[in-house]
Amino acid sequence: MHYSPLIQNLIDSLRGLPGVGPKSAQRMALYLLERNPDAAQSLELSLQQAREKVGRCQSCRTLTEEPICQLCRSERRLRHQLCVVESPSDLLSIEQTGVYQGLYFVLMGHLSPIDGIGPKELGLEQLSARLAQGEVTELILATNPTLEGRTTADYIAQLAAQQGVAVSRLAQGLPMGGELEYVDSATLSFAFSGRKPVDS
Amino acid sequence: MHYSPLIQNLIDSLRGLPGVGPKSAQRMALYLLERNPDAAQSLELSLQQAREKVGRCQSCRTLTEEPICQLCRSERRLRHQLCVVESPSDLLSIEQTGVYQGLYFVLMGHLSPIDGIGPKELGLEQLSARLAQGEVTELILATNPTLEGRTTADYIAQLAAQQGVAVSRLAQGLPMGGELEYVDSATLSFAFSGRKPVDS
Ligand SMILES: [Zn+2]
Ligand SMILES: [Zn+2]
Repeated sequence: MHYSPLIQNLIDSLRGLPGVGPKSAQRMALYLLERNPDAAQSLELSLQQAREKVGRCQSCRTLTEEPICQLCRSERRLRHQLCVVESPSDLLSIEQTGVYQGLYFVLMGHLSPIDGIGPKELGLEQLSARLAQGEVTELILATNPTLEGRTTADYIAQLAAQQGVAVSRLAQGLPMGGELEYVDSATLSFAFSGRKPVDS
Repeated sequence: MHYSPLIQNLIDSLRGLPGVGPKSAQRMALYLLERNPDAAQSLELSLQQAREKVGRCQSCRTLTEEPICQLCRSERRLRHQLCVVESPSDLLSIEQTGVYQGLYFVLMGHLSPIDGIGPKELGLEQLSARLAQGEVTELILATNPTLEGRTTADYIAQLAAQQGVAVSRLAQGLPMGGELEYVDSATLSFAFSGRKPVDS
């Protein structure tokens, strides 16, 4: 005995979300069908619009439905600082500290040869080209303090050195092996202020 | 600083799911947009089809895309026993014990005058009409062992007594204040086997 096929499909799709187990997926599906069809419709519409329209900012590569994101367009941001992060949520975490006024470059991942993710997939050619333009004088590496994040940062530090751009890293203080997204705002703010120049 | 509007809409819609907080909703949205567009598409399609096609079984009122659900159509089910549950997930929990071979009637809720849920909203007119047909000789009340579930069961017991149908309840053993959906299979099976006739 199972749910009817369309209900089971919905349960299976909800299980595809991170952190959702079989029992949660079942609760979500029944909630949407029994009690809150408006929530189901809203989720369907949001998915459809986001899937159709959200792409990458041409300048910083973050997720956005605009050609150039709001932050990259802002006249209040300092254009000589560029902070490299792995994901849009890392960008948001740094923004929430209020400690940084420059621009970002969002890798959307880290180097991972096993998964076929090399410099090209992370937009590092685009980053090099940008550094070559000369507007950026400080590159701040804010990848995750994981092995992959550090490897990626080392690679980017070499790129920047070739262009003669000063490179810094967030200060020690980030928990090793942790993910930037889950670091509290005070720690992240401290690490940002205490960033160190990178020797290359 | 926030995500762009369409991404924020998606995050807000995901927060509408039960058990999903702001951080989880953000993780889910970025996962769907960054890493797994197939999962996003599958969820969108499942929602669309379920919303369009899933309704109620004309016989037992459970959620299904068929006019009469598979269980109600099955020739292997005993037709003289009818078990009343609050929700489709309760039905599934009982089916998983394998202890019951009869049919179901799914209330899709419980009596709750404050929320405007009365006998009509729970299909109790339909239930009365069915009992009047004479095929059902035992009505088994398996509402949740909560105050609302018991009140609802009491009300239905009176209906059944008026039609001269024997009524039983699941045995004590269900944890008071708990939800049937989360009771383990052994406990539920025991409670089912030990159901007691209801004096009216
Ligand atoms: Zn941008
Ligand atoms: Zn049915």
